[in-house]
Parts: sequence; structure tokens; C-alpha cells
Amino acid sequence: MTIKAGIIGGSGYTGVELIRLLHAHPEAEVIAISSRGLNGKKVGEVFPSLIGVSDLVFSLPTDNILNECDIIFFATPHGVAMEGAGAFIEKGIKVVDLGADFRIDDAENWSDWYGMEHTQPELLAEAVYGLPEVRREAVSKARLIANPGCYPTAVLLALKPLLENNLIDCSNIIADCKSGTSGAGRTANQATLFCEVTESFKAYGVSGHRHLPEIKQELSLMAGEPVGLTFVPHLLPMIRGIEATIYVDLLDTGVDARPYFEKAYANEEFVKILDEGVYPETRSVKSTNYCQIGIQYVKHSNKLVIMSVIDNLVKGAAGQAIHNMNLMFGIEENAGLLQVGLLP
Amino acid sequence: MTIKAGIIGGSGYTGVELIRLLHAHPEAEVIAISSRGLNGKKVGEVFPSLIGVSDLVFSLPTDNILNECDIIFFATPHGVAMEGAGAFIEKGIKVVDLGADFRIDDAENWSDWYGMEHTQPELLAEAVYGLPEVRREAVSKARLIANPGCYPTAVLLALKPLLENNLIDCSNIIADCKSGTSGAGRTANQATLFCEVTESFKAYGVSGHRHLPEIKQELSLMAGEPVGLTFVPHLLPMIRGIEATIYVDLLDTGVDARPYFEKAYANEEFVKILDEGVYPETRSVKSTNYCQIGIQYVKHSNKLVIMSVIDNLVKGAAGQAIHNMNLMFGIEENAGLLQVGLLP
Amino acid sequence: MTIKAGIIGGSGYTGVELIRLLHAHPEAEVIAISSRGLNGKKVGEVFPSLIGVSDLVFSLPTDNILNECDIIFFATPHGVAMEGAGAFIEKGIKVVDLGADFRIDDAENWSDWYGMEHTQPELLAEAVYGLPEVRREAVSKARLIANPGCYPTAVLLALKPLLENNLIDCSNIIADCKSGTSGAGRTANQATLFCEVTESFKAYGVSGHRHLPEIKQELSLMAGEPVGLTFVPHLLPMIRGIEATIYVDLLDTGVDARPYFEKAYANEEFVKILDEGVYPETRSVKSTNYCQIGIQYVKHSNKLVIMSVIDNLVKGAAGQAIHNMNLMFGIEENAGLLQVGLLP
Amino acid sequence: MTIKAGIIGGSGYTGVELIRLLHAHPEAEVIAISSRGLNGKKVGEVFPSLIGVSDLVFSLPTDNILNECDIIFFATPHGVAMEGAGAFIEKGIKVVDLGADFRIDDAENWSDWYGMEHTQPELLAEAVYGLPEVRREAVSKARLIANPGCYPTAVLLALKPLLENNLIDCSNIIADCKSGTSGAGRTANQATLFCEVTESFKAYGVSGHRHLPEIKQELSLMAGEPVGLTFVPHLLPMIRGIEATIYVDLLDTGVDARPYFEKAYANEEFVKILDEGVYPETRSVKSTNYCQIGIQYVKHSNKLVIMSVIDNLVKGAAGQAIHNMNLMFGIEENAGLLQVGLLP
Repeated sequence: MTIKAGIIGGSGYTGVELIRLLHAHPEAEVIAISSRGLNGKKVGEVFPSLIGVSDLVFSLPTDNILNECDIIFFATPHGVAMEGAGAFIEKGIKVVDLGADFRIDDAENWSDWYGMEHTQPELLAEAVYGLPEVRREAVSKARLIANPGCYPTAVLLALKPLLENNLIDCSNIIADCKSGTSGAGRTANQATLFCEVTESFKAYGVSGHRHLPEIKQELSLMAGEPVGLTFVPHLLPMIRGIEATIYVDLLDTGVDARPYFEKAYANEEFVKILDEGVYPETRSVKSTNYCQIGIQYVKHSNKLVIMSVIDNLVKGAAGQAIHNMNLMFGIEENAGLLQVGLLP
Repeated sequence: MTIKAGIIGGSGYTGVELIRLLHAHPEAEVIAISSRGLNGKKVGEVFPSLIGVSDLVFSLPTDNILNECDIIFFATPHGVAMEGAGAFIEKGIKVVDLGADFRIDDAENWSDWYGMEHTQPELLAEAVYGLPEVRREAVSKARLIANPGCYPTAVLLALKPLLENNLIDCSNIIADCKSGTSGAGRTANQATLFCEVTESFKAYGVSGHRHLPEIKQELSLMAGEPVGLTFVPHLLPMIRGIEATIYVDLLDTGVDARPYFEKAYANEEFVKILDEGVYPETRSVKSTNYCQIGIQYVKHSNKLVIMSVIDNLVKGAAGQAIHNMNLMFGIEENAGLLQVGLLP
Repeated sequence: MTIKAGIIGGSGYTGVELIRLLHAHPEAEVIAISSRGLNGKKVGEVFPSLIGVSDLVFSLPTDNILNECDIIFFATPHGVAMEGAGAFIEKGIKVVDLGADFRIDDAENWSDWYGMEHTQPELLAEAVYGLPEVRREAVSKARLIANPGCYPTAVLLALKPLLENNLIDCSNIIADCKSGTSGAGRTANQATLFCEVTESFKAYGVSGHRHLPEIKQELSLMAGEPVGLTFVPHLLPMIRGIEATIYVDLLDTGVDARPYFEKAYANEEFVKILDEGVYPETRSVKSTNYCQIGIQYVKHSNKLVIMSVIDNLVKGAAGQAIHNMNLMFGIEENAGLLQVGLLP
Repeated sequence: MTIKAGIIGGSGYTGVELIRLLHAHPEAEVIAISSRGLNGKKVGEVFPSLIGVSDLVFSLPTDNILNECDIIFFATPHGVAMEGAGAFIEKGIKVVDLGADFRIDDAENWSDWYGMEHTQPELLAEAVYGLPEVRREAVSKARLIANPGCYPTAVLLALKPLLENNLIDCSNIIADCKSGTSGAGRTANQATLFCEVTESFKAYGVSGHRHLPEIKQELSLMAGEPVGLTFVPHLLPMIRGIEATIYVDLLDTGVDARPYFEKAYANEEFVKILDEGVYPETRSVKSTNYCQIGIQYVKHSNKLVIMSVIDNLVKGAAGQAIHNMNLMFGIEENAGLLQVGLLP
């Protein structure tokens, strides 16, 4: 069997990443990619890495070929998947939304952050937040997946063992996060021009970023109580990679947190706990679905520091979406996701 | 009058930065630059930006011309200035050490971090920690300046108004800092090769970095009590710039911290407080002696976040050294330091 | 006396570079900067390097303050200076166009390359092509300067000594040129997004680039006959800098070209000929008005290779414009242009 | 059957790239990797992208496990493979030298460029220059492959159709080439530090680079006569990628060169000819074994310009080595080499 996949909103970096990864997938194939603006163009014209590799041609998102798919990936701005997902699901086609439409359980909260009404509360209720390391079972039975945001993925994996084992003070978590510029997308924008980004670094969204409610929601579920989180994202002068440096207080400073991480991820192929004294570099996971986590207890200040890195376009987007697809279709979890990271 | 300046250990990035800035200084001139390894070479051979600009030739650090200087800048690894500074001071020549030899008041503490004995405790006692915004008076009377480290400069300026006004909980300060790669120097080193640094980001020195005791010492002096600080440095894939994102708890969450910053730096030419909602970018201060500071109170978590940026080679090294020189010689503080930042 | 300068079209990289350089100019001051889109904004809001440095506020290009200037710099897309320059000149205000409107002597040829009619043929006839090393006298008497393009500046300076001394075959000149991305401007554009430019390199405009007719015109004037030129520009993943590698055939392969270069530029402050075996790096002239030139005769293939580097925003734009201003106002040629290059 | 591969000199970028590609190879496996300096270390300690991916441990180059291999890849400085290859070949183990020891047919010429005597003239005579598009047959029968250099691969593929069809003047070929910094290797070196390379561009080796004799040798074989070549390499501020812009004169300017390229590479999986007006970008082939070639006839100067891009670590090194291995073992040529390029 080959899973027939369709991509809606394929003109951005997530779209081309889905094509790249699915091209190497042994049991799936992209049969349709849509973009209103690029309708009729070959994918190789838009993404020259695909010249001679893929014969796909962009279609309209209304093209009937999408109804022949087994799964649809929405790689669209918020508000689009919300309107389009239902029709596919009704036809028995599974849906993964790589955007934000189904990530926040509470429709009102979603509206506050995204500035529009949520029109599909039933779908919202049905959607599964697709972090496989947390909801493997639910994902495998889901019809609709809310693929996690990139920052949330890095932060949630770094805190899961601590929260689930009740090891830290949940009221005072600080996540200082840094992202490569591909997270900002491929749309023309003065703020992400080469000359505006390179050789510089800055914080943004300090008073509140759209990934904040999503992270808090999931952390609170892990903790079983509301968490207090300060989340500050920063922009890095590089393409790919997220690093989260997280500061927490152990409830019992005599506890060694490391074994809890090792146990939590012992059977997780895509999460690697680094040795004592080794800190993760974003390049180590470039182009891969891995998350690498370093742990350091800082004696002089009694803080536990957890550092987590992912490739925002893979584990933080397209790779995780494919991981979810694999679970939904009951095939090998790691299918198509075993490429070794590109270094240097 | 022209101040005659000498640079010892001029083969690195701090050396060429001193030449660049002093070349534009209306009342100072570099008359000697030394480097054992480069003895006899023209500065333009080593630093091609100086071709046709400067006729300086590297001499030995033992060359007598250094005794004709009014001021000596040590841009050397730790341990060198400690041995050499005394002889100059005895001759009435002022000394600024851009290295670490005189930054930590306690000789034993210094030895613990730098792995060698401190041989000059009297000089250590005399040396003034040269952060002009904190010790302007002492600097102006000093014979020997310990020029602050780059990370400490960014962190100290960001916290001074809070600590001196007793606004925050001193026991729980987090400084998540990021530095451009020029901070690692110009010595051949696999870890700072282009292909190892670019397109990547990582934390380092998490369990303890040499700038930690220096920062804690100065923060504690500001606070009037020992502070608890977690300091995590990270390496940025860019040349120049330090950004510090600092997380603190206000003692009274109803207090607006902004006016304290504005008052503290109202008369400080080189520290700029940004408007509400504006966060500093390292590129804004590239090539300049400015520090830009942004302040954001995060309501949902009750944290105060302060973000501070400097150019590590200027305000974090050569520029601050010249600022100190200007104070020591009683000339205009900003002499030679008024160039506009290079953007983009 | 202080020269009062105005900038029209100040929202781009050339605008902020003019402000940066004129801020350091001992005899000039920017009193007005205009941009339709930014009218009313402080320059520091748009260019954060100017926070606390300049109090300038963007005005409309129709604002009367521009008529109080002694000189107007047009930093506008083609077609704008053509329409606006005349009114200033009539009022005795000098004009430097950093755009392309007056660079090509032949109005029809201009129209072919720029896709619009040239409406001011009289001004075109009057305008002086402002490459000081070639037309110092004419510039000093001019009312209207066509400031050379960035690629042309690098190529013309590299070939002047060869053509004026009739040393090479004029029919077969190849200029393989590479430019930093700041040459593409600050307008939002997918093609110059960080993620599209960084970690990549490509040729563009191979069949014909707008700087081609300008280069050919000036080379032919130097040679006294039409030249045959193949000019291929490439885009570099960096901010500033142009490098031109130029391949020519000596008419007499026994001739040593180097002395001709040394003689031609012996009295030119801003052109430096590098020693035998030394090749120029763009970073050596970053932030400066210098051009560095390397010369290598390749024995095995009988080619002469000339390599030339400039900072496209300084010697290739704003710096050269100020050099021209200095000549027009009879002040020191190098006024405001003596800052040392930023390295690293 | 699984081909057992060994890597000698695996501490550099070529070594980790061989591991990356062979990890994805369906019929080969790396069973040994050696490095004197890293003996006993896990590959993941040295290359953190391999943490949790590969359990390989560095051995000594004298370790007996290398004799159990079916093929040995030498990724060593020149002079090493020359001494070591013979013993493997005698045991029936195939050898691919990714270094330069067997690339130049003439031992004396080799000595002139590499500064040491060539001690194995018989092996030199036997070695096949492994550019599959040129010598597929010979490669498939070879015991010893001289894997082509990175610049030569880009230049030779760009000129093959022109020379083999006698379309151009062979006496006047110019190859202006640019390489990412990974080509300079992973050894600590001041010249390739991040701060020395980034934000800069320069030519090097202008009077003669070690890849020159190799390129001339192969071009002359294609042309059937000695060629005149001017080859100037440049260093790019990026990790991966080579671009060659090549200037030639058509013997008959009325001839359309494009069909010759299309025919030459119609059946070559790894060489793609771009459409008219499309020029190759290095990023399009990043992480892949592809070569993309653009062709532009420049009417106004009668030059034909060919632009060619490869990833220097893949088609210019490890990928081509694996392509050669596939041919030598009679398996699918493209095995292990079909990953889609990483973009962005």
C-alpha cells in the first residue's frame, strides 16, 4: 500500500520540507500540492532543489485530486485549515494541520490570540494535539491532528519528565527560546530580509507570543495544574534550528533529574538525552526529526537548566507531521524519518 | 596634547579594534603595538583593513618604545598583564588591562577560576573595575584599570537601576546571554571554525563560566548583599554583539521599573533606554560604544524581563577601555567614541 | 561654514549610510530626510542604530526644508531624480543622484535599459559621471552629479590604468563580479529573504544587467574605442562588499602592468594597490570608502587578472557621493571619509 | 549482500559525509572508521549529528578490521593513500582515494604541485580518474579510483559537451570558481575561523592552485589537445557549494550549444541542464549528488557562459566516491544517493 498524500498551501518552507521527506518515505507519495498563487507551475520552478526530482505541478486548493488522497497536510496560515478540514474528514480522508487552527482547546482563548472567531468548535474538540511522545495512542486513532508549533515541541519535550514526575516548582518556569529564521516563513517581508537578519540577534514577542497559550496548555496538562511560564522567543541569524534554554527550580534540590529523562525517553527514537556536561547544538539535528536534550544542574544557584534543540522545519513541523501520519496509518513510526543530519 | 598609547598583545580582535578607534580619536595616538609572534610585521599585513591607513609595525613587548607611552593597553591572555603592569605604573604610565587579571577582588577566588596563582595582590587591591557608569570617579583617579568583561558589561548595565533601588529579589536572577563569535578570539581553534559555528547555536559553560564571579561580585556590590545568579552563555553564528535577556522578580509587582532606568541613565551618553514595546537588536550597536536596553514587564507570569545589547569588541572591550582612558586623562568622555553604528 | 544636506528617498540602505557618514563629517550636516512612506517617523524608529544619535524626522519630499539645503542627495529608484533635480539646480542647490537617471549619456540607450523615456535630456547632457579618480576636475565644477553604480565603480577603477595606457586587448574583457545583498535594497522581496540568500550563491542578469551599458560607456571613453565586455554579476550571502575578478589579455605579454597601477593611483587616497601575491578581501574595505586592487599575471595562460574590492554602500554609493560633494564644495576631499574599516 | 566499507582518515568533513550517505545506502555499511587522533572515541562525540544514530568507534588506521572491508575510502591528506592503498588492493579490497594522490597521471607533475615524490608510479598508472559521467566503463572495472577534486568536478562537467563536440576555442577558457568553506577542511586554522570568513569574499591561489593540473589534464583529454585554462578559485562565506562560471568562445557563433548539453546528459541521473534563462544556485544541490548547469550565450560580447553548481562534499567528494563504489560493485548507480536536497 502507498499512502497518497496531498499538501494544501505548499508554497512555503513547510511545503517543500514535506515533499523532501515524503519523497524518501517508503510507503507514502505526494500526489497533489496546491497553492493559489502558484497554480500550474512545476514545483522545480519554485523550489530548484526539486528540478529533475519531482514532476509535481501546483494545483488549485479546489482541485478534485485532493479528494483522492488518503491524507491531507494543511501548511496554511491560520483560519484556512479550520474551514477546509471538515470536508476531507467526512470523506474519510485524514487531516494534519501544520498551522495553528486546532492547537488550543479553548475556542475563546484561540480567538483572543489569533484575532478571528473559531468557526469549528466540534472539530476543535475532536482534534488531537500531535506530539507523539505525549499522545501516541490518541494520535494513532485520530482523524484530525493539530501538529504542534515549533517552540512548543522544543519546550514540551524538555519539561515532560520533570512535570510528569512532579519534580519542579510549576509556578516559575522560564523558557528562553531562539529560532532560526525559516520559522518566519517564505513570504516577502522587510523584517526577514537577509540584511535585516544576518549579523544580528534580538528578542521579540516578549509580552506574549502565539505559542505561549499552546505551551501553557500542554504543560498544565502534564503537571496536572496550571503552570507559570515566562516564554521569550528570539530570532537567530541562521536558517534552521530552535534552541530552548529552560530554567526551573527542583522541589527537592537533592534529586538527580537525569534518570527521569533517560527513563522517559528510553524507548523514544527521536529524543536523545546527552551525556553529563554535553550541551546540544542546533546543527546536530539539522535536517532531522531528532530532539537532543542536555541537562545541567547549576550548583551555585540551585537551578536546573534544560537545553533542547530541534530542527523547526522537521521535528517542529513537517517531520512531526509525518511521524503523526505514520501513527495514524499504523506503519513504522520512523518510516521516512531516518536520514542522518547534515553536518556541517 | 596627544596621549601616546601602546598596545601589548595586539594580534587579536581587541588589538585591531583599539587601533581602529584610536585612529579616530582627536587626542590620542597609538605609537606602539607589540606581539611576540608578529614582531616586525606591518599591521596592514595582519589586518588588511589597515593597509594604507596605519604604518604601525609590530614590535616585541620588551621594546623600549612602550616606555614612552602615556598609557598601555594590555590585550593579552590572563596572567600576562599581572606580571607586566607594575613596571609601567611605577614609571607613571597608566595601564588598562582588557584581560581578566584585575577584575576579581579576591585573589583566591581569581585563582580558582583562572587556574594560576595571583602574583600581584597589591595591584589587585589598587585596580579599579572600569565600568564608567558605575565608578566614574574612581576611574578618573586610577592608575590601573580592570576593563570589564563583555558579558559582565551587558548584564551589569541591565541590572544596576534595579539593584541600586532595591526593586528586585536578588536571590533569583537569571541571565540568559548570547555572544557573537569574535568574543572567542582570533587564535586558530577547531571549535570556532566557520563551518563549526555558522548555522548553529548552543549553550556553553553552563555549570560555570569565568565571567560568573565577576558579574556576581559587581551585582552584589550594587545590591549591598550577595546575589543569586544563574548565568548561561550561548554562542551566536555572527561576528559582533552580545544580547542578555534577564529575568527577575520585582519585590513589588505594582512598581513600574522603567522610570528607574530612565533616571539612572539620563546623563549617560552610552546607555540608551528603548521605548515601551521596543526590544534591542545587537546590530543597532554594531561598531559602537552604545548599550541599548529594553524593558518588558510580563503580566501573565509577573516577571520583569530586561534585554541589553552591546558590541562585545567595543562597549565590551576596546571602546570601554578608551572611555576609561578618557576619564583617566580628564578629556571629553566621548572622545573618539562617537561614530554612528554600521547598519546594515 | 556647514554644508546643509538633504536626502530624498531616505528609507533605504543608502539613506542610512549617508546619515552615518555625514554625521561624522566635519563640515556638513543632514538637515532633512524625506520618504513618503515614513513621513513623520523619527529616523531612530526606522534605523535603530540612530536611536539617541540623530533627531531627524522623515518629511515628505515636497517639504520646503529641502529648499534650504546646499546639496540634495537623491537615493531614489530610477525616474525620480530625473523629475526632481532640475528645480533644485535652478535654485542653486547642487544635486547628486545616487540612482541611475544620469549615468548613461545616450537618452535612448538609457530608455532601452530602464524601460521609460528620459524626460530631461538637457540635464543628462549637463550631468557629470562622478567617479572622482577619473573626472575630478569636472566634478568640482558640476551642479549635477551622476553617482556611479557599485559594480561600475569596482570595474572601472580596476581597468583605468590598463586602458588609459593602451596595455590590453579591449575587445575581450571579462568581469566576473560578486556583490553582497545590501545592493538589492531594503524593500520586502522574497528573493532577498534571509533564508533565500544565506548559504547560497548564484549568477544573475547574465544576458544583460543594467550596469552593463554604464560600464561599457566609461571603459570605452578610457580606451578611446568601443570595448568588448562580458559582465556577469553574482549574489553573495553577506551584507556588504563587491569583488570584481577581471580577466584581460596584455597586448605585450612582456609588460609588467603593476607600475602602471601604482602610478595611476599614487596620489589617490581611496585606491590602494596591494603587494605582489596579495589578493583583496571585501572585508578589508567594509564600512570604508577605499578600493583595494590586487594584480596577478597568470603565466601558464598568459592572462592578467585584476581583483578589485569596494564596500558597495560606501565607495559604491554614499561614500562616493560625499567624495563628490567635497569636490563640489572645494573642501578637503577626504572630509568625513577617514574612518577605519570595521574588522572583523 | 552488504558491501562492508572502511574509512581511513575519518576525522574531517568528508568522513562524516561518507557516514551520512552510507547510512542511507541500501547495500553498504560502514564497519570501520579510523583516525589516529580520535582512536577510541565514538563518532557521536566528534560529530554530534551521529549521537544515537551510529555506534561506530574510531580505530587506528592499522586496525585489522580494515582488512575485513570490501572497500576502503581514503579521506586523508595527500601522501597517505599513496602509501596505504597497495596493501588493500593486493588483498582484493577496492580503494577509492578522496584525496589527490592518484589524480594526476604524470608523477613528476604531481610532485611539482604536491611537494613530495610520488612513490607508487605503478598504482598511479592503474588508478582510474573517477568521474562517472566520463569514465563509467573504466570505473566499473577498477580496483583503485582517484576520486576527482571538487573544483574539477564542477568545471569538467560544464565543459565536457563543448570539448567532446569540438565547439569552442580550447586555448582560451576561463573558469571563475567559488567554493564554500567546508572545502578547507576541519583542521584548526586561523584563516578559516568564523570571524575571518563570514561577511567576506576573496580570490586565492590565483597564480596556480593544486586543482589546476588536474582540470587541465582532463580537459585536454576531452579536447584531444592541450587546453589553455585560467582558473581562479574564491572563498565563499557559506558551508557547502561550488559554483563555476565559465567563459568560452564558440568556434562558430551561430551554433546553439544547448542541445549538445542536453544530449550529453540525457541519461545522466546526476547532471541536470536548466532551462533557458535559469541560472543555478548552489543551495539547489545542497546535500545532494546533483550537478545543475545553466547555459547563457551573451550576444553583445559573443561569449558563451556556462554555470555549474555542486555540493563540494557530495558530488565533489563523498557522493561521487559512493557513485564510484556503486559502479565498481555493479549495483544500482544511484543507490544511497537519492535524497532530496535540503532547501532552505
